[in-house]
Amino acid sequence: MDLVIKDATVVTCDADGTVIKSGGVAVENGRIVRVAPSAELEPLAANARQVVDGSGHILMPGLVNAHCHAADSLFRGLVENLPLEPWLQTVWKAEGAILNRQTTYLGNVLGLAELLLSGVTTVMDMFWYPDETVRAARLLGMRVSTGGIFFDPPGVNGQDLAGRIAAAERFFEEFGDAEDVFSAVLPHGAYTVSPENLRTAKKIADRHGALFCTHAAETRAERADVESRYGRPVIRHLDHLGLLDERTVLAHCVHLDDEEIEILARTGTTAVHNPLSNLKLASGFARVPDMLEAKINVALGTDGAISGNDLDMWMALRLAATIHKANTGRADAVSTTEAIHMATGAGARALCAGDRIGSLEPGKFADMILIDCQRPHAVPMFDPVTHLVYSTAKSDVRHVFVGGVQVVRDGQLTRHNIEDTLAEVNSLQPRIAASIA
Amino acid sequence: MDLVIKDATVVTCDADGTVIKSGGVAVENGRIVRVAPSAELEPLAANARQVVDGSGHILMPGLVNAHCHAADSLFRGLVENLPLEPWLQTVWKAEGAILNRQTTYLGNVLGLAELLLSGVTTVMDMFWYPDETVRAARLLGMRVSTGGIFFDPPGVNGQDLAGRIAAAERFFEEFGDAEDVFSAVLPHGAYTVSPENLRTAKKIADRHGALFCTHAAETRAERADVESRYGRPVIRHLDHLGLLDERTVLAHCVHLDDEEIEILARTGTTAVHNPLSNLKLASGFARVPDMLEAKINVALGTDGAISGNDLDMWMALRLAATIHKANTGRADAVSTTEAIHMATGAGARALCAGDRIGSLEPGKFADMILIDCQRPHAVPMFDPVTHLVYSTAKSDVRHVFVGGVQVVRDGQLTRHNIEDTLAEVNSLQPRIAASIA
Ligand SMILES: [Zn+2]
Ligand SMILES: [Zn+2]
Repeated sequence: MDLVIKDATVVTCDADGTVIKSGGVAVENGRIVRVAPSAELEPLAANARQVVDGSGHILMPGLVNAHCHAADSLFRGLVENLPLEPWLQTVWKAEGAILNRQTTYLGNVLGLAELLLSGVTTVMDMFWYPDETVRAARLLGMRVSTGGIFFDPPGVNGQDLAGRIAAAERFFEEFGDAEDVFSAVLPHGAYTVSPENLRTAKKIADRHGALFCTHAAETRAERADVESRYGRPVIRHLDHLGLLDERTVLAHCVHLDDEEIEILARTGTTAVHNPLSNLKLASGFARVPDMLEAKINVALGTDGAISGNDLDMWMALRLAATIHKANTGRADAVSTTEAIHMATGAGARALCAGDRIGSLEPGKFADMILIDCQRPHAVPMFDPVTHLVYSTAKSDVRHVFVGGVQVVRDGQLTRHNIEDTLAEVNSLQPRIAASIA
Repeated sequence: MDLVIKDATVVTCDADGTVIKSGGVAVENGRIVRVAPSAELEPLAANARQVVDGSGHILMPGLVNAHCHAADSLFRGLVENLPLEPWLQTVWKAEGAILNRQTTYLGNVLGLAELLLSGVTTVMDMFWYPDETVRAARLLGMRVSTGGIFFDPPGVNGQDLAGRIAAAERFFEEFGDAEDVFSAVLPHGAYTVSPENLRTAKKIADRHGALFCTHAAETRAERADVESRYGRPVIRHLDHLGLLDERTVLAHCVHLDDEEIEILARTGTTAVHNPLSNLKLASGFARVPDMLEAKINVALGTDGAISGNDLDMWMALRLAATIHKANTGRADAVSTTEAIHMATGAGARALCAGDRIGSLEPGKFADMILIDCQRPHAVPMFDPVTHLVYSTAKSDVRHVFVGGVQVVRDGQLTRHNIEDTLAEVNSLQPRIAASIA
């Protein structure tokens, strides 16, 4: 064995919600080969190259952040107190002034480091220069789902449609076969990409059997805008264009009517809930309980740090489990089981990677995190899933493994000195501040 | 000088919102004597007994948690997915089975340690055996506002009215003059304490010039219950009984009509917003923007860890600043300045202690925290107040001072070995679990 983790409380996040009171996993060639009580792991541990004592910890699959813009962490807290549309205009101004390949890479290392340290082992990220996102993810040792952006205005890199198509195709050539990249095509949204170009993007994705991800139904204004331009609100518009299926991932899905919920369910489309972003930008409350009841695959995301202002999946988890209770008046509106699934299995399913990530099961990638449960805010513990949803903080994540490789040890990255990144960002800070002055 | 902290970004939280880019404080005899740029502090630092380098950190006043039940941390995550009323019945069953002086003290050390580690230097706490709360707070070195409980049923300690009156008076005898205790009388609520007994409690508080704190208008059901019993909804009921003034602190205030908002404003009563509790128990959204507009003093609380399930004031702060944006559709519904004031100055004002705590100003207690701003989720920083509200996590709090004494150093309590407490709580855990089985 390459690695055995034992004596942890194992929350497998498998379909049965299996929890092992004192157990762990055995790992070989980057994959989980056993999930078992500690007693059964002892013989394997005897000859393992690495043995990790999980006592006092929860062992669970790495979280899947299904919607992010990691490099936007460069602009964290820069633009405040505006609703989505004027806010976006200002953010785009700053992005235009600051972003090039080098600064985008820097922003990616910053954002992805935050995610990995908090236990996110896979992230779906939408940003300029997606190959820089992969480069940063590989530096740190995490998985990423990304790919070519579609955006009708010139945007940061000034590409025209032909350039965007070529870039999307190039991404598949470079990363299409990689185990650590879930390739996608990512048009920005129905209000920034024409119906024709959305279809073009989807065709490219389909030809590669890849994911298609876009923002959808985030705000009331967007819904009205798309309806007035194309005669249908966002989800019906996307459905009418034939863009919705099991490989489609729609970020936000806040403003839906009953028919649109039915459409998402019927087509197998994933909705990504980004509660903190929706709260802070005053976008509203996604109909998560209704979507769950309709059996829609609802994954969870942080969105970017310009609307958060951090990338805290544990905050997202807590919010997903609580805000809908107040909003519906039902204390059982979202269960802890549903919430934890949103942050794990539903994210895996969104990436069509449910056979590889999202739970601790033999055959899957050994993407796993160990959470310290012996802290003043963490004892006593009665039910580990309740504990993960309602009492766990990002700082409780002590160890992170991706493909069996330890990429975070005792709360520190193992493969990169983050101080260097922070110093670089700090020295860029004055230029960023000046970009919107 | 006893202590000089310098080279920090100082967020004073004074009335003008003064921020010093590189500065600090000088402390003598437990009080702040200077708040100034670092250059002016250098001569004082030369002869100070302790000098702390605040570079890369924000220095701000300790947070004031205006509503808590710290000892309830023993029951964190025990009772889940119920609305307030049936949930309370189950919680009370567990409390009845487990709580005595010893276990209450244990729970207090657990809960207060969590608070202090996260930068809360003063907490208003309502619980059985309030002298045990003081004992635990003194062990750790923090300030507490508490006092005798009124509750018409026998409750945990089986006292009758005479016993409760005697206990309340005893609390004033013992702690009425203490600098580290803000004495109060705390009836549980209008649905558990009769009008007559509420008045008795208020008379005792008034005779001592002390605080009067109760739960009020938390749920729709409570509002209806009080209205059907006494002919008026909660706030009007309390006003009719003459209980509302500048020394009255009402936890929750979720279900208010316009007239009740006017009553709180007119009487100078403090409302304590407990957003996480209100979300998780499906109580609803307090009308915080309306209360702020009416110039009501709105403080911030965590409530107990049975409705959270932790005591994270940074989470409360983030929620207070964001949920009302989504709920009102206005991205400027609560400003960062308003939010940070809720967690500092408004809490101080709630305790009628605005002259001693809640901001960094000469003459006030040297209750201060240093927040590490050089972390992947924390750079870049453009505006320190935005940063505190939207990007700070409890784990960023590195050093905590109360009355100039360092009670947390590098994220660790200086006066108590918390491992002992965690071990005791863990050994009590099976009995707690069995109490509701
Ligand atoms: Zn987004
Ligand atoms: Zn309470």
